[in-house]
Amino acid sequence: MVKVLINGYGSIGKRVADAVSKQKDMEVLGVTKTKPDFEARLAVEKGYKLYCAIPDKERLKAFEDAGIDVEGTILDVIEEADIVVDAAPKKIGKQNLESIYKPHKVKAILQGGEKANDVEDNFNALWSYERCFGKDYVRVVSCNTTGLCRILYAINSVVEINKARIVLVRRAVDPNDDKNGPVNAIKPNPVVVPSHHGPDVVSVIPEFEGKIITSAVIVPTTLMHMHTLMVEVNNNISREKLLEAIKETPRIKLFKAEEGFESTAKIIEYARDIGRLRYDLPELAVWEESVNVLENEIFLMQAVHQESIVIPENIDCIRAMLELESDKFKSIDKTNKALGIE
Amino acid sequence: MVKVLINGYGSIGKRVADAVSKQKDMEVLGVTKTKPDFEARLAVEKGYKLYCAIPDKERLKAFEDAGIDVEGTILDVIEEADIVVDAAPKKIGKQNLESIYKPHKVKAILQGGEKANDVEDNFNALWSYERCFGKDYVRVVSCNTTGLCRILYAINSVVEINKARIVLVRRAVDPNDDKNGPVNAIKPNPVVVPSHHGPDVVSVIPEFEGKIITSAVIVPTTLMHMHTLMVEVNNNISREKLLEAIKETPRIKLFKAEEGFESTAKIIEYARDIGRLRYDLPELAVWEESVNVLENEIFLMQAVHQESIVIPENIDCIRAMLELESDKFKSIDKTNKALGIE
Amino acid sequence: MVKVLINGYGSIGKRVADAVSKQKDMEVLGVTKTKPDFEARLAVEKGYKLYCAIPDKERLKAFEDAGIDVEGTILDVIEEADIVVDAAPKKIGKQNLESIYKPHKVKAILQGGEKANDVEDNFNALWSYERCFGKDYVRVVSCNTTGLCRILYAINSVVEINKARIVLVRRAVDPNDDKNGPVNAIKPNPVVVPSHHGPDVVSVIPEFEGKIITSAVIVPTTLMHMHTLMVEVNNNISREKLLEAIKETPRIKLFKAEEGFESTAKIIEYARDIGRLRYDLPELAVWEESVNVLENEIFLMQAVHQESIVIPENIDCIRAMLELESDKFKSIDKTNKALGIE
Amino acid sequence: MVKVLINGYGSIGKRVADAVSKQKDMEVLGVTKTKPDFEARLAVEKGYKLYCAIPDKERLKAFEDAGIDVEGTILDVIEEADIVVDAAPKKIGKQNLESIYKPHKVKAILQGGEKANDVEDNFNALWSYERCFGKDYVRVVSCNTTGLCRILYAINSVVEINKARIVLVRRAVDPNDDKNGPVNAIKPNPVVVPSHHGPDVVSVIPEFEGKIITSAVIVPTTLMHMHTLMVEVNNNISREKLLEAIKETPRIKLFKAEEGFESTAKIIEYARDIGRLRYDLPELAVWEESVNVLENEIFLMQAVHQESIVIPENIDCIRAMLELESDKFKSIDKTNKALGIE
Ligand SMILES: NC(=O)c1ccc[n+]([C@@H]2O[C@H](COP(=O)([O-])OP(=O)(O)OC[C@H]3O[C@@H](n4cnc5c(N)ncnc54)[C@H](O)[C@@H]3O)[C@@H](O)[C@H]2O)c1
Ligand SMILES: NC(=O)c1ccc[n+]([C@@H]2O[C@H](COP(=O)([O-])OP(=O)(O)OC[C@H]3O[C@@H](n4cnc5c(N)ncnc54)[C@H](O)[C@@H]3O)[C@@H](O)[C@H]2O)c1
Ligand SMILES: NC(=O)c1ccc[n+]([C@@H]2O[C@H](COP(=O)([O-])OP(=O)(O)OC[C@H]3O[C@@H](n4cnc5c(N)ncnc54)[C@H](O)[C@@H]3O)[C@@H](O)[C@H]2O)c1
Ligand SMILES: NC(=O)c1ccc[n+]([C@@H]2O[C@H](COP(=O)([O-])OP(=O)(O)OC[C@H]3O[C@@H](n4cnc5c(N)ncnc54)[C@H](O)[C@@H]3O)[C@@H](O)[C@H]2O)c1
Repeated sequence: MVKVLINGYGSIGKRVADAVSKQKDMEVLGVTKTKPDFEARLAVEKGYKLYCAIPDKERLKAFEDAGIDVEGTILDVIEEADIVVDAAPKKIGKQNLESIYKPHKVKAILQGGEKANDVEDNFNALWSYERCFGKDYVRVVSCNTTGLCRILYAINSVVEINKARIVLVRRAVDPNDDKNGPVNAIKPNPVVVPSHHGPDVVSVIPEFEGKIITSAVIVPTTLMHMHTLMVEVNNNISREKLLEAIKETPRIKLFKAEEGFESTAKIIEYARDIGRLRYDLPELAVWEESVNVLENEIFLMQAVHQESIVIPENIDCIRAMLELESDKFKSIDKTNKALGIE
Repeated sequence: MVKVLINGYGSIGKRVADAVSKQKDMEVLGVTKTKPDFEARLAVEKGYKLYCAIPDKERLKAFEDAGIDVEGTILDVIEEADIVVDAAPKKIGKQNLESIYKPHKVKAILQGGEKANDVEDNFNALWSYERCFGKDYVRVVSCNTTGLCRILYAINSVVEINKARIVLVRRAVDPNDDKNGPVNAIKPNPVVVPSHHGPDVVSVIPEFEGKIITSAVIVPTTLMHMHTLMVEVNNNISREKLLEAIKETPRIKLFKAEEGFESTAKIIEYARDIGRLRYDLPELAVWEESVNVLENEIFLMQAVHQESIVIPENIDCIRAMLELESDKFKSIDKTNKALGIE
Repeated sequence: MVKVLINGYGSIGKRVADAVSKQKDMEVLGVTKTKPDFEARLAVEKGYKLYCAIPDKERLKAFEDAGIDVEGTILDVIEEADIVVDAAPKKIGKQNLESIYKPHKVKAILQGGEKANDVEDNFNALWSYERCFGKDYVRVVSCNTTGLCRILYAINSVVEINKARIVLVRRAVDPNDDKNGPVNAIKPNPVVVPSHHGPDVVSVIPEFEGKIITSAVIVPTTLMHMHTLMVEVNNNISREKLLEAIKETPRIKLFKAEEGFESTAKIIEYARDIGRLRYDLPELAVWEESVNVLENEIFLMQAVHQESIVIPENIDCIRAMLELESDKFKSIDKTNKALGIE
Repeated sequence: MVKVLINGYGSIGKRVADAVSKQKDMEVLGVTKTKPDFEARLAVEKGYKLYCAIPDKERLKAFEDAGIDVEGTILDVIEEADIVVDAAPKKIGKQNLESIYKPHKVKAILQGGEKANDVEDNFNALWSYERCFGKDYVRVVSCNTTGLCRILYAINSVVEINKARIVLVRRAVDPNDDKNGPVNAIKPNPVVVPSHHGPDVVSVIPEFEGKIITSAVIVPTTLMHMHTLMVEVNNNISREKLLEAIKETPRIKLFKAEEGFESTAKIIEYARDIGRLRYDLPELAVWEESVNVLENEIFLMQAVHQESIVIPENIDCIRAMLELESDKFKSIDKTNKALGIE
C-alpha cells in the first residue's frame, strides 16, 4: 500500500482522496486544508487525517479553535508520503512543487491549473502512461484536455487524424462556487483563436503538434463543459466503425438525445439517478446522434463533467509514477472497477 | 408488506419509489412512465416493474419498440395496490384520482401540484398524521409548504405564533428541466400579495387561519427555494431556546454560514459530499446565524431542497393512511432511519 | 412613399416599424397585435395605427375593453399595403402567407423562423439583393444566418472560401422572454452535426453549397449569440488585408477586448452608452484580437445581437421587392444613414 | 452654472454626467477614469473633459498611449469644481473624501457604497433635501434604500407607519459585469436578519428607527432588484387611497401584470421600448396588482432599476448642497423634466 498525501482538499482533492481510498494498492496518508470549513470537518468525519496546508501556527490554531481535529501541518507528514497529489488552486501547485515537494524529495502530481512545462511530463492514461512511468513530477492535464485526449484516442484507434478543429463551450464555475460569474454573458476565453487548449493536448500527444485547433468561450452554467469536434481524417471511415471505437475506448459513454439526453442537465440527472457519489461522471459523455462522418471528416459533440473527469487519471498517474503497474490498460481497468465506472 | 404503486416516475416519483424500497413495512408494486426514456430504462434496471401510465396500446408499444420491458398498463396492476402514490404533473393527479383511483377503489396520495380540496385532507407528518390516519385520499403538500410546516412546528413547540410573514424566493425549475426559465428575470409569482402559500399551510394547520401571510417570487436558479420568515409570537423567547427547539424538530438541519455555508450552492455541495443519493436533502436547511429574536418577533432564513423534502412525508403518509403505525413520531423515526436522515 | 404593414408587433416587428418610419421612401401603414398588452398600448402611443392580427370579433373586443385604440383587423387594411412584413412567431408566417398574403395578392416578407423554401427567395442585402429584386414572397434569413452572410461576404471579398466550419453558441431566449429556459444547462441544438444553419446560409449563397459546416448549442444567456469561425481559404492572405475587408464591409463593427470588450455584456454596454434605441446593435460585432490567419485558414469570433441584426435587412428587402432602388449599396447606405448605423 | 466634477465614470458616474448635462443650472466640469478603456473613449467622444482619477504619471501615460485625450489628473481640476460627485467603487469614495475632497476643500457627494456616518448626512430628495441644504459632505443612499425611501414616503403621506417588514431580492451584478456571480445559487446577504438595509433607511429617515425590518438575498440575475413590503400602519386605509398616494409621489410608476408586466424583464423591455437612454428607469416600479391592504397592513411588490434610480437623487442633492433651489419639489420637478421622467 503506497501512501498518498492529498494537498488541497477542494473539488479535485476530495474526489482524489475518495478514489485513492477505494484502490487496493494505495491509501490516503492525509489530506490538507487551509481553512477549518465544512469540507475540513467532513474530511475528518470520513476518517482522513487532516493537516494544515500552510505551515503556520496561526492557521493551525484556527482549526483547533473550530474544534476540528488537525494532526499538524503538511511539513509534519510530507516525508512519509510516497507521492503527493497537489490539488491546490491554479498556480499554487507550481509554488508547492518548488517550495515543498522538491526540497522534501517527494514525488508529486500537479493538476491542470499548472503549466505543461512546470513538470517533467503531462499525463493522460491512454496516451502517456508509459512515458510517465517512474517519473517524479507530472501534471494530470485539465478536464477539457482530458476529454479531448480520450476522444482523440478513440478516433486515432481507427483512422489517422489530419486536423482536429474543436470549439469548447466552458461552464463558468463549478456548482459550489457562489462568487464568480458571469451571470448573463458569453465570454471569448481567450479572445485569441486558436486558443491554448490545442497546445495543451499536444503536451500529452506531441505527434498532434499543428493538428489541433481550438477556440473557447465561457457561458453561465455550472454543470459540464461542452465540445464540438470537427476532425479531418486521412481516410473514409464508416460511422459504425467510429461508434464502435468510441464504445471500446475506456471512460467514454454514449448518450442518446432520443432517450431524453437533450442537454448537460439530463446527463447529470442520469448520474444522480444511478447513484454516483456527488453525481460524478468521470466518463466523457458523447452524444450518439451527433457522431457523423462526411467526406473524410468526423463530427461529434461531447460533454465533460469537469469536477470528476480527471479523478481516474490521477489514480492511474500514481500507479505509473510509483511503478505499481506497467500495463496502462491494467491500471485503467483496476481504477475503473474500483470506482464503478466504465 | 403493503404494496405501493407509484404513478408517475418523475422527479418525485422516482424518489418515492427508492424511499419505499428502503422501508421494512412496504414495497414497490410497480412504477409508471408515459414515455420510454432513460428514466424508464433506469427504473427497470433498478428492478422496478414498469407499467405504462396511460392505458393505450400505442403507448405501450412505444416501450416495446424501445426495448424496455414493460409489464402492461396501469390498469393491469392498479387493483393489486394497497395504495397509489400519484406523482404525475400538476393537475394530472386530480384527473387520475377521479378517473382511476376512485373507480378502482384504491387509496391514493396526491402531491402538492394538486389543490387542497381535491382530497379529504392535507398531510404533513408533524401536523396532520393523526388526522389522515385511515383516510383514503390525501395530498402531501408542496415542497414550500412542507418546509414551512416544519419550521412552524419547531417555533410553535416553544411559543405561540401570532402572525408569520414569509417571503419565498423560489427556484425557477428543477435541475433536470432544460426547457423552462426564466433565464434572466425575477418574477412575482403570484403578483398578488398575500400569495396562496399561506392558505396552503392552513390546509395542514387550520389553527393558523389568518396568521400566515406569504409573498413569492421566482428566480433563475435550480438548486433550492429560499424563505425569509418574520414571525410575531406572543411571548419573549430566547434565541437559545428557539435554536434548541429547531434542533429537536425532526427533519430540520442547522447550517452555519461561518463554516462556509454561504449559499444554497454550498448546502447542496454538503449533500453531495456526504454521499446522499442524487444529493437529496430532505431535511429543511436553516441558517443558524439567521435565527434571531427581537421584541417578540422571530427571524430566520431557510432553504428547501424541492426535489426531496416531501419524500419522507410521502412515506409517513402511506403509514398513516394504511394504519401501519399509529404514533407519528414512531413513523417519522422509522422513515428517517431507513433513509439515513436526521 | 410605399406603405408597409407590419404583421406581428413583437421583438422583430416593433423594430421593423421604427426602422421603416425613419426611411424617406416608405411609411408604416399599420401594425398588428394579437393581445392588448403594453406593447399594443405603446404602438398606439408611438402613433402607429393598430390592427388586430386575428380577424376575430372577440379578439377585437379585447382591445376595446382594454381601452386601446384599434382600427380593425388585418383584413381591413391588408389590401392598402404595398408590402407586408410578417414578424409573427415561427411557423405562423408561413400560415399567414398562405391564408392572407397570397389570397389578398400582397407582397410579403417572412422572417427567419420560416423555412427557406416557403418563399421564392432568401434575402441578405449583400448577397441576394439583386436576386430578390421585384419578387413577391421573400424571407429575410435568421439572425445567425444574417451574421454569417455578412462575415462570409467580407472574407469572400478578398479570398476564395474553400470550407467554413462554424460553431454557434446561441442565447437561449430574448431578454424580454421570462418563460423559456434553460436556466442551467447547455443544449446541443440540434444534436446532429452538421446543423441546419449551413444549408440556411446556402439558401442565400448557393455557391457555398457543401462548403459551410455548422454546429450549434444553446446556453442560458439573453444578450447575443456568439460564433467561432474557422474558414479554409484557397490562398494565403494577410491578417491586415482581412481586417481591412471586414472594416469595409457594411454593418460589421470591430471590437477590441483590450479596450474592455471582454464579453457580449460589454458590447451591449457599449450599445447602451452610445444611446442606441433599445440598445440595438444591428452591426455584426467581430472581436479584433480573434481575427487570425494561419496557413490558409482564417479564424475569428463574432457576436450577433439577435433582436436587431435583421432590421436593416428587412428595410433593404422592402426596397428590393418594391424596386425602389436598384443598387444594393445605395439601399444599404440609405438604410444605415437613416438608422444611424455603420 | 455650477461646475460638477464626476470622479469615477462607471455605471453611476456616466449616468450622473449625462444627467448633469441635461440640467440648466449645472454643467459637467470633467469626468475621471482610472483606465483608458472604451468608457473613457466614449466620455471624450461625448465631449466630456477626461481626467485621470489617480494622480500618477504612469496612469496618465496609459491614456496617452491608448490615444485617448486626457486633460491631466484629478488634482489639475479639483479646485475648479463647485462640487464633486464621487462614483468610485465601494470604500474608495470614503478614501477620496479624506485624501482629496477635504484637503482641497471641495464639497462632495458620496454614493451608497460608502457608510452612512462617513458623511454629514444622507440624502433622499423626498425625505432629507432640507436637512442636506448647504452641507458639504453628503451621501446619496444606495439603490435599494432609495427605492424604499420613495415608497415609504408615499405610504407615510396617507397613513402612519408602525412597522415595515421588507425582503429584498437583489440582482447579483450589473448587466455589464461579466466577472462576478453567482451563476446558480441563492445567497443570504447578509445571513443575519434583520439586515443592515433597515438602518440605512433610518440614516435618511431617523423617525423610522426601530420600525424597519429587512432581510436580503442575492439571486443570479442582472436587471433589477425586487422588494416585498409588508407594512403595518396605525389605521385602516383603503387600497384606492394608497394607490392614489403612490401615483402622486414623484418617481414611482405603477405597472400592471395584466398588461404583460410579469417580471423585471418585461419592465426593462418597456424602458427599452419608450426609448430611455441605456433603458434607464429611475422611477421605482410598483406592481399595481400587488398593492393590497388587509387589517391595517399594507402589502406590495416593487422593482428597482439599480443602475439609474439614484441618478435624479444625485442631481437634487447637488442643488441642495449648493443651495441652488430651496424647495425640494421644485428641484425634483426640474430634474424630472430635464430627464424626461415622471
Ligand atoms: N474544478 C475543476 O473543474 C477542475 C477540473 C480539472 C482540473 N482542475 C484543477 O485542479 C486544481 C484544483 O482545483 P479545484 O477546482 O479543486 O480548486 P478548489 O478551489 O476547489 O480547491 C483548492 C483547494 O486547495 C486548498 N489550498 C489553497 N491554498 C493552498 C495551498 N497553498 N496549498 C495547498 N492547498 C491549498 C484550498 O483550501 C482548497 O481546498 C487546479 O489546478 C485546477 O485548475 C480543476
Ligand atoms: N419537483 C418538485 O420540486 C416538486 C416538489 C414537491 C411537489 N411536487 C409535485 O409533485 C408532482 C410531480 O412533480 P414532478 O416534479 O415529479 O414532475 P415530473 O414532471 O418530474 O414527473 C412527472 C411524471 O409523471 C409522468 N406522467 C405524465 N402524465 C402522467 C399521467 N397521466 N399519469 C401518470 N403519470 C404521468 C411523467 O412521465 C413524469 O415521469 C406535482 O404535483 C408537483 O407539483 C414537485
Ligand atoms: N427575436 C429574435 O431574436 C429573432 C431574430 C431574427 C428572426 N426572428 C424571427 O422573427 C419572427 C418573429 O420573432 P419575434 O422574436 O419577433 O417573435 P415575438 O414573439 O417577439 O413576436 C411575435 C409577434 O407576433 C404576434 N402574433 C402572434 N400570432 C400572430 C398571428 N397569427 N399573426 C400575426 N401576428 C401574430 C405576437 O402577438 C407578437 O407580437 C420569427 O420568425 C423569428 O424566428 C427572431
Ligand atoms: N451600480 C449600482 O447598481 C449602484 C447603485 C447605487 C449606488 N451604487 C454605488 O455607486 C458607487 C459606484 O458604483 P458603480 O456601480 O458605478 O461602480 P463601477 O465599478 O461601475 O464604476 C466605478 C468607477 O470608478 C472608477 N474608479 C476606480 N478607482 C477610482 C478612484 N480611486 N477614484 C475615482 N474613480 C475610481 C472606475 O474606473 C470606474 O469607472 C458605489 O459606491 C456603489 O455602491 C451603485
